[in-house]
Amino acid sequence: MNDSPQFPRPARALPSIRRFLPILEWGCSYSRATLTSDLVAAVIVTIMLIPQSLAYAMLAGLPPEIGLYASILPLVAYALFGTSRTLAVGPVAVVSLMTAAAVGEVAAQGTADYLTAAILLALLSGVMLLLMGIFRLGFVANFLSHPVISGFITASGVLIAASQLKHILGVSAGGDTLPGIIAALAASADMTNPITVAIGVSVLVFLYFARSQLRPLLTRLGVPQRSADITTRAAPIVAVAVTILLAGSLDLASEGVVLVGAIPQGLPVPGLPQISLDMLTALAVPAFLISIIGFVESVSVAQTLAAKRRQRIEPDQELIALGAANIAAAFSSGYPVTGGFARSVVNFDAGAETPAASVFTALGIALAALFLTPLLASLPQATLAATIIVAVLSLVDLREIQRVLAYSKADFAAMAATILVTLLWGVEPGVVAGVGLSLALHLYRTSRPHMAVVGRVPDTQHFRNVERHRVVTEPGILSIRVDESLYFANSRYLEDRIAALVAEEPDVRHVVLMCSAVNEIDASALDSLEDINRRLADAGVTFHLSEVKGPVMDRLRRTDFLERLTGQIFLSQHEAVTALAAARPDPSSTGEFHEKC
Amino acid sequence: MNDSPQFPRPARALPSIRRFLPILEWGCSYSRATLTSDLVAAVIVTIMLIPQSLAYAMLAGLPPEIGLYASILPLVAYALFGTSRTLAVGPVAVVSLMTAAAVGEVAAQGTADYLTAAILLALLSGVMLLLMGIFRLGFVANFLSHPVISGFITASGVLIAASQLKHILGVSAGGDTLPGIIAALAASADMTNPITVAIGVSVLVFLYFARSQLRPLLTRLGVPQRSADITTRAAPIVAVAVTILLAGSLDLASEGVVLVGAIPQGLPVPGLPQISLDMLTALAVPAFLISIIGFVESVSVAQTLAAKRRQRIEPDQELIALGAANIAAAFSSGYPVTGGFARSVVNFDAGAETPAASVFTALGIALAALFLTPLLASLPQATLAATIIVAVLSLVDLREIQRVLAYSKADFAAMAATILVTLLWGVEPGVVAGVGLSLALHLYRTSRPHMAVVGRVPDTQHFRNVERHRVVTEPGILSIRVDESLYFANSRYLEDRIAALVAEEPDVRHVVLMCSAVNEIDASALDSLEDINRRLADAGVTFHLSEVKGPVMDRLRRTDFLERLTGQIFLSQHEAVTALAAARPDPSSTGEFHEKC
Repeated sequence: MNDSPQFPRPARALPSIRRFLPILEWGCSYSRATLTSDLVAAVIVTIMLIPQSLAYAMLAGLPPEIGLYASILPLVAYALFGTSRTLAVGPVAVVSLMTAAAVGEVAAQGTADYLTAAILLALLSGVMLLLMGIFRLGFVANFLSHPVISGFITASGVLIAASQLKHILGVSAGGDTLPGIIAALAASADMTNPITVAIGVSVLVFLYFARSQLRPLLTRLGVPQRSADITTRAAPIVAVAVTILLAGSLDLASEGVVLVGAIPQGLPVPGLPQISLDMLTALAVPAFLISIIGFVESVSVAQTLAAKRRQRIEPDQELIALGAANIAAAFSSGYPVTGGFARSVVNFDAGAETPAASVFTALGIALAALFLTPLLASLPQATLAATIIVAVLSLVDLREIQRVLAYSKADFAAMAATILVTLLWGVEPGVVAGVGLSLALHLYRTSRPHMAVVGRVPDTQHFRNVERHRVVTEPGILSIRVDESLYFANSRYLEDRIAALVAEEPDVRHVVLMCSAVNEIDASALDSLEDINRRLADAGVTFHLSEVKGPVMDRLRRTDFLERLTGQIFLSQHEAVTALAAARPDPSSTGEFHEKC
Repeated sequence: MNDSPQFPRPARALPSIRRFLPILEWGCSYSRATLTSDLVAAVIVTIMLIPQSLAYAMLAGLPPEIGLYASILPLVAYALFGTSRTLAVGPVAVVSLMTAAAVGEVAAQGTADYLTAAILLALLSGVMLLLMGIFRLGFVANFLSHPVISGFITASGVLIAASQLKHILGVSAGGDTLPGIIAALAASADMTNPITVAIGVSVLVFLYFARSQLRPLLTRLGVPQRSADITTRAAPIVAVAVTILLAGSLDLASEGVVLVGAIPQGLPVPGLPQISLDMLTALAVPAFLISIIGFVESVSVAQTLAAKRRQRIEPDQELIALGAANIAAAFSSGYPVTGGFARSVVNFDAGAETPAASVFTALGIALAALFLTPLLASLPQATLAATIIVAVLSLVDLREIQRVLAYSKADFAAMAATILVTLLWGVEPGVVAGVGLSLALHLYRTSRPHMAVVGRVPDTQHFRNVERHRVVTEPGILSIRVDESLYFANSRYLEDRIAALVAEEPDVRHVVLMCSAVNEIDASALDSLEDINRRLADAGVTFHLSEVKGPVMDRLRRTDFLERLTGQIFLSQHEAVTALAAARPDPSSTGEFHEKC
């Protein structure tokens, strides 16, 4: 099982060149069969990516071609450096929304500065991801708890859907927050264009039907599961084709239906725009948040898919690959990209076996940018908006909210704060509030650790809480278990609680602090232990420790605490109680039973 | 021992009126003997407080009388609400420095706005302390670790001493940071006034001699320890008296020696200045930091003294008392106050038995403000500066820095950051950097918890690390102990580590996760446990938990994790290993010994 694909040795053991270029691993054994699988997947993903790229660029407030540009070079860069065989990178909904929010702070939509800022955001984010990968700082993403991430994604889904309603109504309205969007829509409701609404709602209904009804229907008709899945995913391209034909043939532009309009034909010119220091400073924090959110989203998609084929993802290398993809986006007039869920699943289901599929997809999009753009000029924006709305509503996960509420109030509080702040103040404050609150709640909890008086479970050497178990305690010996590492935030609480517990037991002669859950004693807690030792000594009580872990003991040995300790350090609580009971002046008295639930 | 003064029941059990007015406890049994003790202490503290109040007002950039005003009503307010019998509140060095830094940001020294801002700072700080006390938020102070506090106090001592050098040299120079102060002194060094230097250095030498030599000398001459202490503490008033006489009789003002000058005679007019919202906003963060630092300093002094007489301090009530003292300061034209170390020790040593001593001290200072101020006009500022320098250099604690360095690199890093940032950027950034870094280091550590493969210590039911102890393990059973609560920041690390440990043991059929140190499993960690369970199941390995704590188990029961768990939950690791070994198809194979240190 040493070579099991599920639990391989850590990649650190690989030669370093292979670590940084995973392509060397799969590239050497590339076969004709693999080529066929990858090509088929690439064609399907390309068809799906064309409307998505345009739609997410529109969501980010950028010209549609930028979405295509962001789906070419970044895919090649990820293919070179990424550890996932099937992840498909490119523009995604949440990152596009975050881009719109960040860039909107420094430039007005439609200006050259706006595009420059979006490109710089990709560059900054790419450099940050790359550095985090090189310095193995992927653990930073761990500070986003699952409830905060899922709350943020849910709230972003709602925000994105709301922001697209203006295109369905055919009005121009702004707003970065839910109240802002609603107010703007309400103010411009009388400008609603009925034909636009008709197109938008029809596409919405069609896409919703395709998503929820078409697949079961096809399966019932005998179409294989995988083909049914892929057909369903192709529904947006059908909507795009049909509405382009409608808008072109009926000249809907003259009826006030907003179309995508002329898209420059060709490939992006490689290079970077002029970089202004002011803009870089203003975009640093959003770029960091986009990096982290994009990384978390991408890695979780990659891990889900890798687990299905028993492959393994190397998070630090993923940082490098996503960094390279974003730098590639910046050099080809794109905007921030990351691994997307829907397109990666399509890529996987369509049979992609290696990252070469992504390279072929990139070629497909490049061909589309060269030859297909004239056809897209008549595409109604309402079609793209409907595509976005149906896609993002699957991000809204109410069951997860319920599940977290049932399990943990603290987690739910962090989740609820993330959702509310995201909806009411926007995406950046939402992430910051969620992370801040979850850290604060964690610190608050560890600052008041659970402490229990323990006794021995009869016929064992095992000690449990006297209030929860039927256990034996010895008179004169107070065994206290503290269920947390001792550090500055809880050291004073420890002093207070031990004082209170000793005050309740007038006959105590020995206090044994059971340290089985103590993984660290920092300098503040050491001071507190010294204070406790001194105060107990003043009251004629001896202070002992038991079950001190190796690393903690090593450190205590470097101080003079052990010399000043009035009692001893015992290997186990059982040893402590046995030794102290045996040393008692009156050994005839026996342990007393606690009969509590 | 139930009524031991050391470990009384928590004050929560007291009737609530008594909780909020501790004066009712000692006031009812006030005797003539107590009165005498308190009066003697009050006279001694008053004599000591007069130069201190003037000096600290000067340090805060305020007119000298403000120091006296801050030493009248606040003392009475603390006497009414405080739980310490001997704490002496008033202006202190570190808070005065912080006041100068905060107020200097919003107004120019010497203007009416500067005084207004200082008064508002006291008001804000008082209200914050009061609210924190009412809502029992005293735990917030626990996030200041001991190394951060001691680093901050040390750095403040150095900053304060440096800031007073200008008065010793007789030059005018500014600066809030060590480089700033040094540069300003260097720029104005050629303006040095030799007579001022002569006075300053003489007083410095005298006070230093009094502090380090006089007490041993007096003790050797047969003076009782306590009287020797008090005489030593009176040295500053001798310096004040002598230099006033010198400056007055020799007309040193005409030689360029800067004197304190005319101090308004009388008591402060009760009332508040005009409050501007801009100023309140600008002062909110400094007021919070001053509140926390002042509270920590005051409580640690109060607890040290209380422990000596086996009395007890109630931190939440201390917040209320310090809040009242600061509000009283604001209403009597004072500036932020807190419990001071030196004066409280003098109060204690001089025999104060109840807070009435503080009330008598307040009367003494009021009399001084009414009748003594004309005498103080000829006091050279150099004398006050020398008083401050000698007082604060005792705050610099290099031994503590060494001790922390030897014990813990993380604690030392937080301490060093606090010291450096305080010296180079000022007091507020210093506190914030220290707290931020110590929290970040704590989180980083818990995000990579210690995990160990454990085995049974022979002839016991106790399990320890196979790498540190001579233990027995059963083939096919991998017992892993995780030494930390499982929460979002370490849940992914847990997944990775278990995967790696299982990969190293190809024959494993059971993994038992020993949860004796797991005090919480949050929603993110629950997701990770489910993933681990599923992946192990795919690899044909059963996943068990052991020694799950009561509160953690209660919460797991609310989910469907226990149904999905492929293995069982065992009360103890011993039970788990015994049961799994017994159920093994080939029970003839016996445990293997690990012979590692």
